[in-house]
Amino acid sequence: MSETLTFADIRDAHERIRPFIKRTPVLTSERLDAAVGASLFFKCENFQEAGAFKSRGACNAVFSLTDEEAATGVVTHSSGNHAAALARAAQLRGITAHIVMPAGAAQSKVQNVGHYGGWITFCEPNLTAREAACARVSKQTGATIVHPFDDLRVAAGQGTATIELLEDMPDLDLILCPVGGGGLLSGTAVAAKAIHPGIRVIGVEPELANDVQQSFRAGRRISIPTPATIADGLRTNCTGEKNFPLIQQHVDDIVTVSEEAIVAAMRAVWDALHMVIEPSAAVPYAALLEKRVPLTGQRIGLIVTGGNADLDKLPWLKA
Amino acid sequence: MSETLTFADIRDAHERIRPFIKRTPVLTSERLDAAVGASLFFKCENFQEAGAFKSRGACNAVFSLTDEEAATGVVTHSSGNHAAALARAAQLRGITAHIVMPAGAAQSKVQNVGHYGGWITFCEPNLTAREAACARVSKQTGATIVHPFDDLRVAAGQGTATIELLEDMPDLDLILCPVGGGGLLSGTAVAAKAIHPGIRVIGVEPELANDVQQSFRAGRRISIPTPATIADGLRTNCTGEKNFPLIQQHVDDIVTVSEEAIVAAMRAVWDALHMVIEPSAAVPYAALLEKRVPLTGQRIGLIVTGGNADLDKLPWLKA
Repeated sequence: MSETLTFADIRDAHERIRPFIKRTPVLTSERLDAAVGASLFFKCENFQEAGAFKSRGACNAVFSLTDEEAATGVVTHSSGNHAAALARAAQLRGITAHIVMPAGAAQSKVQNVGHYGGWITFCEPNLTAREAACARVSKQTGATIVHPFDDLRVAAGQGTATIELLEDMPDLDLILCPVGGGGLLSGTAVAAKAIHPGIRVIGVEPELANDVQQSFRAGRRISIPTPATIADGLRTNCTGEKNFPLIQQHVDDIVTVSEEAIVAAMRAVWDALHMVIEPSAAVPYAALLEKRVPLTGQRIGLIVTGGNADLDKLPWLKA
Repeated sequence: MSETLTFADIRDAHERIRPFIKRTPVLTSERLDAAVGASLFFKCENFQEAGAFKSRGACNAVFSLTDEEAATGVVTHSSGNHAAALARAAQLRGITAHIVMPAGAAQSKVQNVGHYGGWITFCEPNLTAREAACARVSKQTGATIVHPFDDLRVAAGQGTATIELLEDMPDLDLILCPVGGGGLLSGTAVAAKAIHPGIRVIGVEPELANDVQQSFRAGRRISIPTPATIADGLRTNCTGEKNFPLIQQHVDDIVTVSEEAIVAAMRAVWDALHMVIEPSAAVPYAALLEKRVPLTGQRIGLIVTGGNADLDKLPWLKA
């Protein structure tokens, strides 16, 4: 692994994780194409193991460890898809995953981690407490910290979805990708530009969580308070230190979408594509609904990041 | 087309409809495999055009017509997936589809047919009125009747999903297939046994709609009152006259499932596979949940028939 992220790293990651992840399908919908006036290709990481693209990065991080490093396990702080993905990857390698979760995390998220044999440490529900707990566990156990996004092994893994997308659909004009901490976006952009230099890559985030757009425009990392967006996978305060220069170098633009558009896009995808996607995964299609990118006649890839929606609480149904 | 259904008919159908349908993916889930102790392969016709396998049979029927036959259009009576699929197939061929629907049909179903340019004729909501209206439209317009299931062109089209499933997964032990009128089941069984004579094919229907099981055991077609099952695609009174001998000859068994198991299976598939399936499509997995077939260690294909669920009214949520 070099000190920055290269396409060779992503190709290596793809070879490394292939036995442990799914090659997810690319789906299309006549109806959604007609609704926005473009040809859309949905890379369905909601069908990925553990329900999200996070399995790619987690597997790459875990299977990159030397046997000596692996022996003492891994640790992360996350209440979301990275937690379950890391627990699963560690289980596959036969090592321990310590997962620091905030007290009060949704029962379903706790169960997902437990399902894959993760060891859960609860902490106060704020970032300082989470980072402190993570550092403490690492110090006590020797576990390697695998950050949810600001880790180049993780970003390399996330980029492998784009290798597959462009193998299946070589002539895309544009890839739309949700951005939270920037691990997926940097992996996607590095892979896409290496394979097809003329392609555009645009990151999409909720208006309420527009730290990456602000940072991209200011040319420096800007931090925001924890955003209240429905897109729970994108509630990050600041893009990663390692990811940001990659985003600056390889990404064409960052656009934002409203909360209403996220719910409308989620519903439209469930309806037309008959698949369950979580709010964060609806953000790229929301950008098309809100015409945040020029699109007439284009061939557009959309990274559908995950499917872990709460089936007991759909945002278009009144409680 | 011969007077019975042969594998050659199904292969011909596959060639004929290929430009108009999707090759749907086969998905797997570690979690569902572990839950039932078998290896499961879900043939995802919920991702098919118009949201159901019905597009296969409808396209085969419409594109089998001579130009002279086609000129006067097609007609059917259906309030479900066959209606939308036939409207879509007719639109693709540039001919008229007349759809007889019962007054009071769900607005979403009416809109689906309208979306594909179908001409809707409303009638009283009973089978006699529907058949009479269908015959009247056919007589007035010269439109060819395309029955939802008791038509060998339709059954041939439905069998094409199994060609694809067994191309992708050649070594299945068993295929589980929902059965309503028997078009899908007869196509599936003829294709499966021709490709892989040792394979077993079992039809699954709701206990409340067990006409095919009764018929299969009695050796003659038995009719039941319209069943009240949640699986709205399987509310048929009697299996088709043309399908029944094919089912007798090629199907190994018919098993039934409870309403509770259908809802539980639907929920489990949404949760674990992150896809939207309608109640009728959950019936094969329900049979595994209720242990209606011996399954330890087997490799089982399940035909996921459709994804047109009502997203405003999920059966596991209280109204």
